Amino acid sequence: MRDVYHEELDAISDQLVEMTRLVSSAMARATTALLDADLKLAESVIEGDETVNEAQHTLENAALQLMARQQPVAGDLRTLVASLRMSADLERMGDLASHIARVTRRRYPASVVPAELRSTILQMGQVAERIVAKAGSVIARKDAEVALELPRDDDEMDRLHRELYRTILAPEWTYGVETAVDVSLCGRYYERYADHAVSTASRVVFLVTGVWEREESEPVSHQ
Amino acid sequence: MRDVYHEELDAISDQLVEMTRLVSSAMARATTALLDADLKLAESVIEGDETVNEAQHTLENAALQLMARQQPVAGDLRTLVASLRMSADLERMGDLASHIARVTRRRYPASVVPAELRSTILQMGQVAERIVAKAGSVIARKDAEVALELPRDDDEMDRLHRELYRTILAPEWTYGVETAVDVSLCGRYYERYADHAVSTASRVVFLVTGVWEREESEPVSHQ
Repeated sequence: MRDVYHEELDAISDQLVEMTRLVSSAMARATTALLDADLKLAESVIEGDETVNEAQHTLENAALQLMARQQPVAGDLRTLVASLRMSADLERMGDLASHIARVTRRRYPASVVPAELRSTILQMGQVAERIVAKAGSVIARKDAEVALELPRDDDEMDRLHRELYRTILAPEWTYGVETAVDVSLCGRYYERYADHAVSTASRVVFLVTGVWEREESEPVSHQ
Repeated sequence: MRDVYHEELDAISDQLVEMTRLVSSAMARATTALLDADLKLAESVIEGDETVNEAQHTLENAALQLMARQQPVAGDLRTLVASLRMSADLERMGDLASHIARVTRRRYPASVVPAELRSTILQMGQVAERIVAKAGSVIARKDAEVALELPRDDDEMDRLHRELYRTILAPEWTYGVETAVDVSLCGRYYERYADHAVSTASRVVFLVTGVWEREESEPVSHQ
């Protein structure tokens, strides 16, 4: 049987997993809202971000209180500090989903995404969901093996991001500057979302193996 | 005379101040490189980012070791955790300066910034430097009064960011899609840089007063 202290440590890990679910749902809805120019759905993402922020504050307080009350040994201390970092990453992922929803809302009833880019954006949304789902199971099961898959998914996101730039910058682009700017910002939000998910998983790997796998990827350029 | 423990706490604060200097210098050089299409200067920013990353790792290790060795009371613990967060903000500010330098490098020998936007970008660079200098003195002197000025500077940054969008989206814009996308990304990097600086100062205020002033600002839109 586990003692109260370790139960509290586990509860913090559960809260992180719950946060991955929240930001996964936010990004899934943000992508659908973006592709369908769905104002209501976009607004639900924007309003729902408050729940993610509250989840982070709850987790932060729990971790700080646990640190102050118990005097955690080095390993548990590292876990708690890493949890704070992961919750900050996840909170930011919620912001990024919300940013995409805001672009949708601003252009409503017009659609942000031209036909040529629907498939790219759809795939970026799918990769985002895949990455955050994996990050969730890495946190839940401390599975360093699954964590090692995430950089590959992130590479796929970067590839899609470059594809998006190629389309925007091609001579055939006829949708004007505003759409180009909006779409490129959304692309950047997807890319950062994936970076934060990878960073979250890397922190688990670091705790398990002591090896820090990778920092955020370079920003994708349209070279 | 202060004991070794408090000297170590002070040393961490000094390291944070040093990081504000590093990222201030990085952003100043990134802005000049962007405006002058100066490849060498841009490359010095990109290479110099490693120094910022190392400073963060050093600080992180020092803080973790201090936590593990001493059993800091609630107040000191909060300070140490806040220091970890601030160092992450500052590390990210270094990344953002580096991103601006990368845009410069990618377009070299062409210049990214058209004549109409030189003044806006110049001012964004100036506001960035002002904000980070203030953040540095907030950390150094635990000055909650100065910290309260930062949101105003951040509002000025947001105003400039909107001005930048207005120029890009005006019918008179003749510089094409690629320049619009590059300039809008740079604008976003300046805005995020300022957000992180404000966040850094807010953490000091929180430690001093117990009141959390504000989260990051909403992304600026071109509405």
